[in-house]
Amino acid sequence: MLPITRPSGRAADALRVVRLTRNYTKHAEGSVLVEFGDTKVICTASLEEKVPGFLKGKGQGWLTAEYGMLPRSTNTRMDREAARGKQSGRTQEIQRLIGRSLRAAFDLQAFGERTLHLDCDVIQADGGTRTASITGAMVAAYDAFAQLLESKAIAAIPLKHFVAAISVGVYQGTPVLDLDYVEDSGCDTDMNVVMTDTGHFIEVQGTAEGVAFDRPTLNSLLDLAQGGIGELIQLQKQALGLTA
Amino acid sequence: MLPITRPSGRAADALRVVRLTRNYTKHAEGSVLVEFGDTKVICTASLEEKVPGFLKGKGQGWLTAEYGMLPRSTNTRMDREAARGKQSGRTQEIQRLIGRSLRAAFDLQAFGERTLHLDCDVIQADGGTRTASITGAMVAAYDAFAQLLESKAIAAIPLKHFVAAISVGVYQGTPVLDLDYVEDSGCDTDMNVVMTDTGHFIEVQGTAEGVAFDRPTLNSLLDLAQGGIGELIQLQKQALGLTA
Amino acid sequence: MLPITRPSGRAADALRVVRLTRNYTKHAEGSVLVEFGDTKVICTASLEEKVPGFLKGKGQGWLTAEYGMLPRSTNTRMDREAARGKQSGRTQEIQRLIGRSLRAAFDLQAFGERTLHLDCDVIQADGGTRTASITGAMVAAYDAFAQLLESKAIAAIPLKHFVAAISVGVYQGTPVLDLDYVEDSGCDTDMNVVMTDTGHFIEVQGTAEGVAFDRPTLNSLLDLAQGGIGELIQLQKQALGLTA
Amino acid sequence: MLPITRPSGRAADALRVVRLTRNYTKHAEGSVLVEFGDTKVICTASLEEKVPGFLKGKGQGWLTAEYGMLPRSTNTRMDREAARGKQSGRTQEIQRLIGRSLRAAFDLQAFGERTLHLDCDVIQADGGTRTASITGAMVAAYDAFAQLLESKAIAAIPLKHFVAAISVGVYQGTPVLDLDYVEDSGCDTDMNVVMTDTGHFIEVQGTAEGVAFDRPTLNSLLDLAQGGIGELIQLQKQALGLTA
Amino acid sequence: MLPITRPSGRAADALRVVRLTRNYTKHAEGSVLVEFGDTKVICTASLEEKVPGFLKGKGQGWLTAEYGMLPRSTNTRMDREAARGKQSGRTQEIQRLIGRSLRAAFDLQAFGERTLHLDCDVIQADGGTRTASITGAMVAAYDAFAQLLESKAIAAIPLKHFVAAISVGVYQGTPVLDLDYVEDSGCDTDMNVVMTDTGHFIEVQGTAEGVAFDRPTLNSLLDLAQGGIGELIQLQKQALGLTA
Amino acid sequence: MLPITRPSGRAADALRVVRLTRNYTKHAEGSVLVEFGDTKVICTASLEEKVPGFLKGKGQGWLTAEYGMLPRSTNTRMDREAARGKQSGRTQEIQRLIGRSLRAAFDLQAFGERTLHLDCDVIQADGGTRTASITGAMVAAYDAFAQLLESKAIAAIPLKHFVAAISVGVYQGTPVLDLDYVEDSGCDTDMNVVMTDTGHFIEVQGTAEGVAFDRPTLNSLLDLAQGGIGELIQLQKQALGLTA
Repeated sequence: MLPITRPSGRAADALRVVRLTRNYTKHAEGSVLVEFGDTKVICTASLEEKVPGFLKGKGQGWLTAEYGMLPRSTNTRMDREAARGKQSGRTQEIQRLIGRSLRAAFDLQAFGERTLHLDCDVIQADGGTRTASITGAMVAAYDAFAQLLESKAIAAIPLKHFVAAISVGVYQGTPVLDLDYVEDSGCDTDMNVVMTDTGHFIEVQGTAEGVAFDRPTLNSLLDLAQGGIGELIQLQKQALGLTA
Repeated sequence: MLPITRPSGRAADALRVVRLTRNYTKHAEGSVLVEFGDTKVICTASLEEKVPGFLKGKGQGWLTAEYGMLPRSTNTRMDREAARGKQSGRTQEIQRLIGRSLRAAFDLQAFGERTLHLDCDVIQADGGTRTASITGAMVAAYDAFAQLLESKAIAAIPLKHFVAAISVGVYQGTPVLDLDYVEDSGCDTDMNVVMTDTGHFIEVQGTAEGVAFDRPTLNSLLDLAQGGIGELIQLQKQALGLTA
Repeated sequence: MLPITRPSGRAADALRVVRLTRNYTKHAEGSVLVEFGDTKVICTASLEEKVPGFLKGKGQGWLTAEYGMLPRSTNTRMDREAARGKQSGRTQEIQRLIGRSLRAAFDLQAFGERTLHLDCDVIQADGGTRTASITGAMVAAYDAFAQLLESKAIAAIPLKHFVAAISVGVYQGTPVLDLDYVEDSGCDTDMNVVMTDTGHFIEVQGTAEGVAFDRPTLNSLLDLAQGGIGELIQLQKQALGLTA
Repeated sequence: MLPITRPSGRAADALRVVRLTRNYTKHAEGSVLVEFGDTKVICTASLEEKVPGFLKGKGQGWLTAEYGMLPRSTNTRMDREAARGKQSGRTQEIQRLIGRSLRAAFDLQAFGERTLHLDCDVIQADGGTRTASITGAMVAAYDAFAQLLESKAIAAIPLKHFVAAISVGVYQGTPVLDLDYVEDSGCDTDMNVVMTDTGHFIEVQGTAEGVAFDRPTLNSLLDLAQGGIGELIQLQKQALGLTA
Repeated sequence: MLPITRPSGRAADALRVVRLTRNYTKHAEGSVLVEFGDTKVICTASLEEKVPGFLKGKGQGWLTAEYGMLPRSTNTRMDREAARGKQSGRTQEIQRLIGRSLRAAFDLQAFGERTLHLDCDVIQADGGTRTASITGAMVAAYDAFAQLLESKAIAAIPLKHFVAAISVGVYQGTPVLDLDYVEDSGCDTDMNVVMTDTGHFIEVQGTAEGVAFDRPTLNSLLDLAQGGIGELIQLQKQALGLTA
Repeated sequence: MLPITRPSGRAADALRVVRLTRNYTKHAEGSVLVEFGDTKVICTASLEEKVPGFLKGKGQGWLTAEYGMLPRSTNTRMDREAARGKQSGRTQEIQRLIGRSLRAAFDLQAFGERTLHLDCDVIQADGGTRTASITGAMVAAYDAFAQLLESKAIAAIPLKHFVAAISVGVYQGTPVLDLDYVEDSGCDTDMNVVMTDTGHFIEVQGTAEGVAFDRPTLNSLLDLAQGGIGELIQLQKQALGLTA
């Protein structure tokens, strides 16, 4: 990969500084502040002792996610969705993505008729809020299940895989990892990738914002994403004290 | 590719019968009934002589899409979104995808301060409604611009690329093209791909519904999609009388 | 009646060409494309094995209708009601009318605790969409009950009367039958009439758009309507294969 | 007409006691309490010095109506529409009817770019709220225009016709005038008629609730309505001091 | 207290003429027209034989209030909340206040699993609609319980205290009682006070509209309110025939 | 004041530990994390270069506030208001209170045609979120105006008074300051007080949750509030570096 000058000064394959702060607020079963550089998201995991109607009596659990941004988490204040009376298409798209990604991480059959609600609320945005949300929600969800395990309500954490997410894109002709807001705005192609700790894909969502991209570019982007997600999952495990 | 038995009896790389019927309804500037087998979608293109507020005075056009399903287009009747008072997250996701895909097909700078509204309404659903919508909307949009050209309001059709879309997925372990409803329901991985006639990607959206998928599987799916989209674009051009 | 020149060239008491195409889509228990000239409406009848709360346990059925127009079914594109988040007063008025008319056609006591949902979706509008909807929904409902009869869930089709509807109006001073859009727009009085095959009235809704109308005019309009509805019911029975 | 015993003891062609109290509240340009027996509706007419967007700059006025019921105007408390967040189909149907009827009474070309808002709020319901609303709103609107005339903003009251409305129906086989709630509930056919002081029809809306009705019955109902409306218009003129 | 000239000519500590008319409409269990001068509010009390979900099975009752204004109850016509599709913040604030105040008047444990709905609808506004509403709703609620007692459904009226409400404010530097609209508009401080017949406070809500107010002013306002509420409770008891 | 044992161990007149962290997020003109013990609220102040329609062209500014709680800021997860599609009455009441309070702090005539938006988002709740919001928003607003001053857009900070807020209540018979959640839940009377640095009142909102309260109790509560607000304003000034 050729050296380019990213606005952030990062190498093309460098993540921003990532921090995962557990127990960030006191009420939730899992509560994590996730930071990807200046992007900061509070991820809470709340367990509820019931499932939605369509699952009642089936003996399995459910996991769902909601996403929001504080009105001034962004450079220009956005209208508050609660005041406007509806969530935007973008918000719904993101919360559906978070939900699907985390449902791939846990075994819904293995925690009884309970619902895990993941709330990802962006308090400061600088690009990559959906990938930070997925990465942070993974840790919050793990903590919630660990608490359930401790209370002996379940016999084991219903983990299938660790899951993390990262964005990649083509910035001034070069594939780069973990776009911040400035890069994202000036970017031709933007891709969000969700993967497991076994290197498999959960979601691949690539969009040509300007110029359509070819197959070799797609391959380079996937290589970058794979590397970044490996690092993120390492950080998740460290935060949870699961590494040697 | 090994022979498998698809419920439809199709080969793994075979599209369903695809039909594009132009001038399907009489009022719209472009109106196409697109059929991918039993999936039937009415795509209309409506030109409006103004642009949304954020583009006023910039001398460029806009293109936007809406998507809907008739309540009994599906096997079980769905609630009517107009009666419920809101569009589902799925609907919003699909109409955002159609809009982005078609904005990649046309040059927004080249048709003045006009908006092209694409409406994709599913009258019968059997899997692949979003890919059929994109493929049909391409033809409807072309027809609308052709009418604008005929009226001498523009000097040329503002075409950048032909664009078409197809779904691919892993059905019983084998990558297959153009999933119908039965295959889609029993499928581990589902991917929607939007490409241009130059073989570049506009959108790649892959989701592991059950088992996460590996890189070689992803590659096979992309190969299948590329083949299918080539055929679809050929059919679009034939329908428009653009082939020799 | 004096000869006038209707824009359509029709005689004052002539219906447009009416077509009733059964089994138009594949999922619904009854599915009819009804055409009154260029007005085209898809009418589906969907059976649900339950009744609304207010009828639970009363041993009777229910029948309800919904109506919609595709955004570009009309000459100028209308906003999509699902996107606006509510149905217009006109839409609600029409769907209430369709529901009342069809509840007069069938015996709600005679098909058990089931709901028949009638969906009338206009794909092309040229005047008379509500009368076409009622006329087509009659056939779709009949087909749905015939299917229920075939499955032996009921002992007979719960028919009270055949029901059809037509518009009449005063165009350039002369009462005429079955107004198309051009006539409807230039019309002083507009009346929608719903009748049974025994020549009784279910609904009479007349409105003076411009000049108030006198009693003799009202009588002429009712005469015209009676004739037109007789023809429509004949066509319904032919479509269902119920005529000798 | 044969003698029947109506629950109210009225003759078949007898109105309830009708009262029209002008200046009922102090703020509105016109404010009338209309009573048809125990049905009581406050009708206010409010003048606004502008027209809706679609009429701007056309030099003409507009007239529109809204209708509501206090939650406990009825025997069983209804949900408040403002709390439910939407108006029912019935409410919309009624307010559209009131608006159309009163637009037939006044010449929209003759009072400048102003909007007359008619609000009909039912404080006690006992059948016939829509006909009472139209009859009362006529007087409130007249008062509002009289005030405009007094202020010399217009040269004459823009009156086309006096307009009033009444319900008729078939109660236990006999056509009767001005149904109260008990009669309305037990009634086979229900018709609302709006007429001018010249005996012409503005609206005829008849519905067979149970048994479909024949042409002679329709004629009897129209005869009854015509008589009742004549009396109502006499009462309107008396209330306004316009009779000798 | 120094003599000032109030626009109304009233003494600083004088209420407007207050009237409480019981049985104002015929359907509700309690129905009161309350007038504070030109402010007129219809207060109805409706008993329902069930409680909200959160109280089911607890053996106690519930009391809730809703508030509305007719569109032209005010000097300038307001949009109808039912048409706008939501209640304003002001409306919600007022109906929450009415509900809390009346829940303090009655013993929720003592009338079984029933809900008392209080509807306060302003038909003419001239300041003080919320205090008139509370004062009138007290009487309507009492009547509803009296009717329940008469039917022997309860053994005694579940009264804790009589409750009434009044506004006080600083008008041109002087504390005054029971502000009408003109005074309210020109007022620096506005306070609504709800008290019991034992002289205790249920609610104190004071707002500095212009100049912040000091402790002695607050004390004067509370003195005035205490006097006014004593008079109002006397009037409530007289209206109910509970005084010697 | 007699010693009581508060659950928190605090003296009756003791505030919780209060912290005001400025520049908490990076985009807003003013951004403060305010903590009253375990209650944590992010207050941002956003300047917009325009005013609402009703103030256009009047040469003055506007200040408005919005309030929200993260779904799991509380002990039990609440529904997200953006997902439910409307703000609760409580939310609207609180944001109206914050807005009124802060409009009393600044001179709206003195910062041009600009709007200051205050957003108070609770990330952890433990009682007193509205008083913490007001107290923190004061500092955020000050910072936003200081930035405007620095850019020379205004000649001075348009300060009228420092404003802060605190809750007081009667806990187990004793008046106490700054209720936390446990105290608030078990409290008979709850009062929120907003005052200026000159000891004047902006808002007094007292509610008897259980037992109505007498005048001496009200006086004790106001004494406590006055003391607490004095301390809070001292802390605000320290945080802003405005104290000697």
